[in-house]
Amino acid sequence: MTSLSSSGVRADGRTPDQLRDVRITRGWLDQAEGSVLVEFGGTRVLCAASFTAGVPRWRKGSGEGWVTAEYAMLPRATNSRNDRESVRGKIGGRTHEISRLIGRSLRAVIDHSALGENTIVLDCDVLQADGGTRTAAITGAYVALADAVAWGQKQGHVKPGTVLRDSVAAVSVGIIDGVPMLDLPYVEDVRAETDMNVVVTGSGSFVEVQGTAEGAPFHREELNALLDLALAGTAELTRLQAAALAAPVAGFRA
Amino acid sequence: MTSLSSSGVRADGRTPDQLRDVRITRGWLDQAEGSVLVEFGGTRVLCAASFTAGVPRWRKGSGEGWVTAEYAMLPRATNSRNDRESVRGKIGGRTHEISRLIGRSLRAVIDHSALGENTIVLDCDVLQADGGTRTAAITGAYVALADAVAWGQKQGHVKPGTVLRDSVAAVSVGIIDGVPMLDLPYVEDVRAETDMNVVVTGSGSFVEVQGTAEGAPFHREELNALLDLALAGTAELTRLQAAALAAPVAGFRA
Amino acid sequence: MTSLSSSGVRADGRTPDQLRDVRITRGWLDQAEGSVLVEFGGTRVLCAASFTAGVPRWRKGSGEGWVTAEYAMLPRATNSRNDRESVRGKIGGRTHEISRLIGRSLRAVIDHSALGENTIVLDCDVLQADGGTRTAAITGAYVALADAVAWGQKQGHVKPGTVLRDSVAAVSVGIIDGVPMLDLPYVEDVRAETDMNVVVTGSGSFVEVQGTAEGAPFHREELNALLDLALAGTAELTRLQAAALAAPVAGFRA
Amino acid sequence: MTSLSSSGVRADGRTPDQLRDVRITRGWLDQAEGSVLVEFGGTRVLCAASFTAGVPRWRKGSGEGWVTAEYAMLPRATNSRNDRESVRGKIGGRTHEISRLIGRSLRAVIDHSALGENTIVLDCDVLQADGGTRTAAITGAYVALADAVAWGQKQGHVKPGTVLRDSVAAVSVGIIDGVPMLDLPYVEDVRAETDMNVVVTGSGSFVEVQGTAEGAPFHREELNALLDLALAGTAELTRLQAAALAAPVAGFRA
Amino acid sequence: MTSLSSSGVRADGRTPDQLRDVRITRGWLDQAEGSVLVEFGGTRVLCAASFTAGVPRWRKGSGEGWVTAEYAMLPRATNSRNDRESVRGKIGGRTHEISRLIGRSLRAVIDHSALGENTIVLDCDVLQADGGTRTAAITGAYVALADAVAWGQKQGHVKPGTVLRDSVAAVSVGIIDGVPMLDLPYVEDVRAETDMNVVVTGSGSFVEVQGTAEGAPFHREELNALLDLALAGTAELTRLQAAALAAPVAGFRA
Amino acid sequence: MTSLSSSGVRADGRTPDQLRDVRITRGWLDQAEGSVLVEFGGTRVLCAASFTAGVPRWRKGSGEGWVTAEYAMLPRATNSRNDRESVRGKIGGRTHEISRLIGRSLRAVIDHSALGENTIVLDCDVLQADGGTRTAAITGAYVALADAVAWGQKQGHVKPGTVLRDSVAAVSVGIIDGVPMLDLPYVEDVRAETDMNVVVTGSGSFVEVQGTAEGAPFHREELNALLDLALAGTAELTRLQAAALAAPVAGFRA
Repeated sequence: MTSLSSSGVRADGRTPDQLRDVRITRGWLDQAEGSVLVEFGGTRVLCAASFTAGVPRWRKGSGEGWVTAEYAMLPRATNSRNDRESVRGKIGGRTHEISRLIGRSLRAVIDHSALGENTIVLDCDVLQADGGTRTAAITGAYVALADAVAWGQKQGHVKPGTVLRDSVAAVSVGIIDGVPMLDLPYVEDVRAETDMNVVVTGSGSFVEVQGTAEGAPFHREELNALLDLALAGTAELTRLQAAALAAPVAGFRA
Repeated sequence: MTSLSSSGVRADGRTPDQLRDVRITRGWLDQAEGSVLVEFGGTRVLCAASFTAGVPRWRKGSGEGWVTAEYAMLPRATNSRNDRESVRGKIGGRTHEISRLIGRSLRAVIDHSALGENTIVLDCDVLQADGGTRTAAITGAYVALADAVAWGQKQGHVKPGTVLRDSVAAVSVGIIDGVPMLDLPYVEDVRAETDMNVVVTGSGSFVEVQGTAEGAPFHREELNALLDLALAGTAELTRLQAAALAAPVAGFRA
Repeated sequence: MTSLSSSGVRADGRTPDQLRDVRITRGWLDQAEGSVLVEFGGTRVLCAASFTAGVPRWRKGSGEGWVTAEYAMLPRATNSRNDRESVRGKIGGRTHEISRLIGRSLRAVIDHSALGENTIVLDCDVLQADGGTRTAAITGAYVALADAVAWGQKQGHVKPGTVLRDSVAAVSVGIIDGVPMLDLPYVEDVRAETDMNVVVTGSGSFVEVQGTAEGAPFHREELNALLDLALAGTAELTRLQAAALAAPVAGFRA
Repeated sequence: MTSLSSSGVRADGRTPDQLRDVRITRGWLDQAEGSVLVEFGGTRVLCAASFTAGVPRWRKGSGEGWVTAEYAMLPRATNSRNDRESVRGKIGGRTHEISRLIGRSLRAVIDHSALGENTIVLDCDVLQADGGTRTAAITGAYVALADAVAWGQKQGHVKPGTVLRDSVAAVSVGIIDGVPMLDLPYVEDVRAETDMNVVVTGSGSFVEVQGTAEGAPFHREELNALLDLALAGTAELTRLQAAALAAPVAGFRA
Repeated sequence: MTSLSSSGVRADGRTPDQLRDVRITRGWLDQAEGSVLVEFGGTRVLCAASFTAGVPRWRKGSGEGWVTAEYAMLPRATNSRNDRESVRGKIGGRTHEISRLIGRSLRAVIDHSALGENTIVLDCDVLQADGGTRTAAITGAYVALADAVAWGQKQGHVKPGTVLRDSVAAVSVGIIDGVPMLDLPYVEDVRAETDMNVVVTGSGSFVEVQGTAEGAPFHREELNALLDLALAGTAELTRLQAAALAAPVAGFRA
Repeated sequence: MTSLSSSGVRADGRTPDQLRDVRITRGWLDQAEGSVLVEFGGTRVLCAASFTAGVPRWRKGSGEGWVTAEYAMLPRATNSRNDRESVRGKIGGRTHEISRLIGRSLRAVIDHSALGENTIVLDCDVLQADGGTRTAAITGAYVALADAVAWGQKQGHVKPGTVLRDSVAAVSVGIIDGVPMLDLPYVEDVRAETDMNVVVTGSGSFVEVQGTAEGAPFHREELNALLDLALAGTAELTRLQAAALAAPVAGFRA
C-alpha cells in the first residue's frame, strides 16, 4: 500500500502540504463552560473545559490561576478495541505524556495572573482515532479554553481584559518514503520514518517541537523541511480557530 | 422548583407517561462492528460493539459465545466535573453495578450457542448525562449488538439464523410528589421518592426490575403503577429500536 | 439433582414458602458497639456496628448522622477458595454492589436527624456462604445497628427518642423448575431461572426490589408470586429480629 | 493501670508463667478441608485450610507440595475500627509480615515430598483481637493443616504415611515492669518493654525467634528468661493441639 | 542569582558551549552484563544492562530482539526528598516519559535482527540529580548496552558481527537570559526560557528533538542556535563514549 | 559447592567468626543531610538521611520527633533482574518487613524528646546485593542518622545535647553444615539451615533478634552460639562506626 502515488498525490487525494478536512464545533456539550468537537479528517476529539473558582492548594494565595489537561481514548476509538485504563487500574505512559503536552501547550498562551485564582481543566477524549489525536486535541482545546475564559469573565469570576496572550494550535508532520508530509492519518503515521508534532502560537513561535526517528535517524535538512510544513499547517489551523470563535456557537446538532 | 405543575404537566412539558425525545443513530463510528449514539433527551450515550472471534479461556470449547459490557462516563458528562476512574486508579461501585446490569440484560436475549465461540463487548460511554444513562445505554447497546451480530454473519464468523431471541430495552420510572412518572431527567431523578429501572424484552417479559426507595419505602400499589408505566415505555422503545434497525445506517453526520 | 421432590418438598425438607432455620445472636463480639452473628441455614454473617462521634466532612454542620456498610467474604466462606480482594488490590463489582445495597437498606429506616452528627459503620463479613448472604447481612445488620444506636443513647452521644423509624429485613426468592420459592440456599440459587432479593420494612413496605432473569425473562404474574412470598418471609424475619432485641444479649458462647 | 499486682498476680488473675484459656475447635466451617476456631482468651482466629491438587507453576514437576498462609483482621476485630485493606487497595507491612511468618512456621514441619504436588493454603482471619493474634494463628493453623492433610490422604490425593514431621505452636512473651510474662493480652502487650514471639516444634526446637525491644534494649539474661517461658508455654500448647486432634470434631455449635 | 556573569562565564565557570565534567565508569556493578556510572557534573546515573535470552511473547518467532529501558530516581537524589513511586503505588508521567525516551533512543541504533531473539533491559537509576538526568542516562545506557551486546556475543547468545549500527548520545540545551547554553545543571534548568533535549547518533543524525517553551515561545533562529550547540555537544559525548569503550573496564573502585 | 573447607576456612578465606571487609563512606551524596555508602563485602547500600522540620500530623504537639526508614533494591542489584516494585504497583512483603525493622532499630537509640518535633527519613537503597543487605543498611543508616542529627543541631533545628542515646549495628549469623558463621554472603545465605539477624546497641544490648529455621529447627545451644557470634560481630561494627564518625567526611570520590 502506498499513500503517495507517482503523481505526488496521497491516498486520500491530498498534496503533501495539505491539511485534512478540519472542523471545529463549539458548544457540543450543554453543561461545560467550554466544549468543542474537533475533527481532523476521521479523528474526532471532544474537548471539554471545566471552570472552577479556586486553585490547587500549592497555588493558593499566589493570585495566579491554573490550567491543566487530561487526555484519554474511548476503548473503541481505534480499529481494534483497547482495554480501559480504569479497568487496568493504571494510566499508560502514552496517555500521561500526551496529557502533559496538552497542558503545557495551553499554559504557554495563558496569562495566569489575568486568569486570577481560578482553575480550568481541559478534558480531551478521543471518540475516534485516525492519527494526529494529540494535535487535534491541542487545537480544539484552545478553542474550548477561550470559551471557558469568556464564560468566567461573563460570570464575573475573571476580570475583563486579555487572559489569552496568543492562540495555540498543533499539527503532525512526517517523512514517508522520503517525502515530508503534513497532518498524517493513521495509515501514513505507521509508515513514517520520522514523526514530528509541532505546537505553534498564532503569532508563529514554537511552543513544542517533538521529533522522533521511527526508522532511520533524520538529517538537519529534513528537520527544516518538516518545520516549514508545520508552520504553514498551524497558520491555517490558527485561521480556522479564529473563524470558529468569531461565528455563533453551533451546538451538538450542527 | 417543581417538575410537575398543578395541571399535571412536567417541567419539560411532558405528561407523566411520556418518554423524552429518543434518537437512535446507527453507524456513529467508522470502525466498530456496531455503533449507536442513543439520546434520551439530553442524555447521550455512545454504544460501541466490538466483535472478536474466540471467547475467554473459561468458555473455550463450549461452542458458546460471550457478550459483556462496560459502562463509563466522561468526566464532564455531568454538570460538574468528576475525576476520571483511570486517574483514581479504581472503578467505583456505581460503574461496576451498571456495567454488570447492561451485560446481564443483553445476555438475556442472546442465543449463546447460535453466536458460536465469538465475543462481543459493548462499550457504553456517557458523553452527556441527564438522567437515565443506564437505561439509555441498554436500549442503544441492543441496537449496536444487533449490528455486530449481523456483521459477524456477513463476515461468515457466525452462522446464519436467529442469534437474538428477542430485543431488549430499558427505562427508568419513579414517584415524584406522589405521582408515578416515566423516563426521569436529572432534575426529576434527584427528587424521586422511589426510583426504578426496568429492563423488558420486546415481547414484554421482565429481564430486570430494580426499585429503590430513596425517601419513604413504597407500597405494593405504587410498585404496580410503576411497572405499568415501565411496560408501556419499553414497548415504545422497542418500536423505536425496530425502526432504527429497519432504516439505512445514518452515520456520524446524521 | 433436584431440590424439590414430586411431593413438593425441597432437598432440605422445607416447603416452598418456608424460611431456613434463622438464628440471630447478639453480642458476638466483645468490643463492637453492636454485633450480631446471623445465620440463615448454613449461611453465617458476622455484622459489626462501629459507632463514632462525628460525620464525614461533606456532612459536617448538617446536624444529621450517617450510616454506611461494607460487605465482604472470607476467602474460604465458599466451597472453593476465592482470592482475597486485598491481595488482588481491588474490590470486585459484586462486593461493591452488595455493600451499597446494605447501606441503602439501613438508611431507609434511620432518622438521620435523630441520630445527630454521629456515624455508624456496619461491617458484614460472611464467615460461611450458602446462598442469601446479602439478605442475611441486611437482616442481621439491622439488629446490630439497633444495638449501636442504643449504645449511643446510653452513652449520651445520641438524644433519647426514636432513631429507627422502622425495622428492615430482607430475603431472597426465586423460581426453580417453575415453582416460586423462598430463601434459596446455594444449590437452589444456581438453578433459579429468576432470582430476586427483596428488602422490606417491618411495616411491610418495600425498600428494594431487585429481580433478575437468570434464564428466561419472567412474566408479571411470576413477579407477583415472588413478591407475595417475599412479604411473608420478611414478616417472619421481622418477628425474629424483634424477639432477638427483646431477649437478653446472648454473646459469643451462646 | 498495672497488670501485675504486688502479689505477683496479673490483671486477669494469671501468674506470669500461665497461658490464657486456650480453646481449639475443629470443624468450625462446613466446607473447608480443615478449619479451626482458635481462642487465646479474647483473641479468636478462624483458620481455614484449603486443599487443592496441583502446585504453583514454579514448583511443577518437582514432586513436592506447597503450603502457604494469609493472615488478615476483620475491620472491627479491634477496639476501634480499622479500614479494610481491600478498600485501601493495598496490604500493610504488618499483614505481610505475619502472613509470611505463619507460612514459614508451617513449612518447617511439613515434608513437602510426602505431601506430593498438592497445595494447602491456610487463611487465618482474626475475628476478635486481644493480643497474640499471630501466635494463636500459628497454633490453630497447625491443627487445620493436620486435618487438611488427613483429608487429602482419605481422598487419595496424598499417599499414606507421615506428612507432618512434627507439630508446631507459638506463643508471645514479654517483659512488663521488669517481669517476664507469658502470652500477653492487648493491655499487657502495649506496656511491654520487650516483646517476643517464639515458634517451637512439638519436640522443643525453635522455628522462629523474633524479639523486639519496644522500650529499652534487653540483656542476654532477659532473653534467656523469655525463652524459658516460651518453651514451657509452647509445650502446653502442643499438648492442647494433640488433645484437640485426638478428640472427635466438635463443629460450629460446640 | 545569575548563572552567566557579564563576561559570558557561567556560575560554574563554563562557557555557554561547554559540557560539564563528564565521566563514564564501566563495570560499576559486579553482576550485570553491562553497567556504567555516568556523571554529568553532579548528576550521577547508574545504568545497568540486563541480558536475557528470549523475547516477550508478542515478538517470539520474529527472529528479532528487544531493547527497553526503565528510568527512576532514588528518593533523595534531589535537593529535597521525593516520595517513592513504589510507595505511592503508581509511576508518574515524567518517569514514564523518560523511560520511553531512553528506550526509543537505544532502539534507533540497534539492529534487532543481528541481536537475535534476546532481550536487553536498561535500568537507569538516578543516584544524584543536578539537571540533565535523562540525557546522561541515554549517554551512559548506550555504553552499558554495548557491553551487554559484547557479553552476549562472547557467551555465544548473539552471533558475531555488528549489532549496534551507530552510537547514540544526548544532551540538554536551553536559552537563559537570551543566551543559548549547553548541558544545563539544575540551577540553569529552572531558569531556562526554552529547554531542549536532543538525542543524536555518532554520525550526527537526529534521533529525538524535544523542545519546550517554559516561558515565552521560541523563534526559528533560537531553535537553530540550540540545535547547533546540541550537535557540537553530542559530538564530544560520542568521543567520550568511544574512549570509555576503548579503555579497560575500570570497575567500582575507579 | 562448600563455603567451608576441611581446614575451617570459608570460600572467601574468612574464619567462621570473621566479618567481611566493611567500609563506611560518609558524605556520598552532596545534598542529603546525612549520607553513607556502606559495604559489607560485595553488598553496597546507599543510606540517605533526610531531615525535615516538623512531624507527621499524629505526632504534632507532642514535643517529640520521628525517625522512619524505607528500604528498597535496585532492579539489578541481584544476580538476575527483579521487576521494580513501582512497576508492579505494590511493595512486597519482604521490603515492608525490612523497612520496618530498620526504622525500629534506629528508634531504639534515639531520644525522641531531644530530637524535638523534627523528622528524619532514612532511605536505604541497595545498589548491589550479596547477602546481609538489611544488616548493612542498619549499620550504615545509623551513621547517616548521626550526621543528620549533627546537621540539625548545627542549623539550630535541634537543641545541643545528646540525641542518640547509644549507637546501633546489625549483623547476620547462620548455621552452615552445622557450623555457626558470622556475616553471610549470598552463597552462604542460601545454604544456611538457620539464619539470624541480630541488632545490637553499642553497649551490647539487643534491639532485635530474628532467627528463622530455613531447614531443620534449631536447638537452644545453637541459638546461644549464634548470639555469641553476633555480639562479637556487632562489637566490631560499633568500632568501625565510631571510627567513621571520628574521621573527616570522605565524600563520593573516596
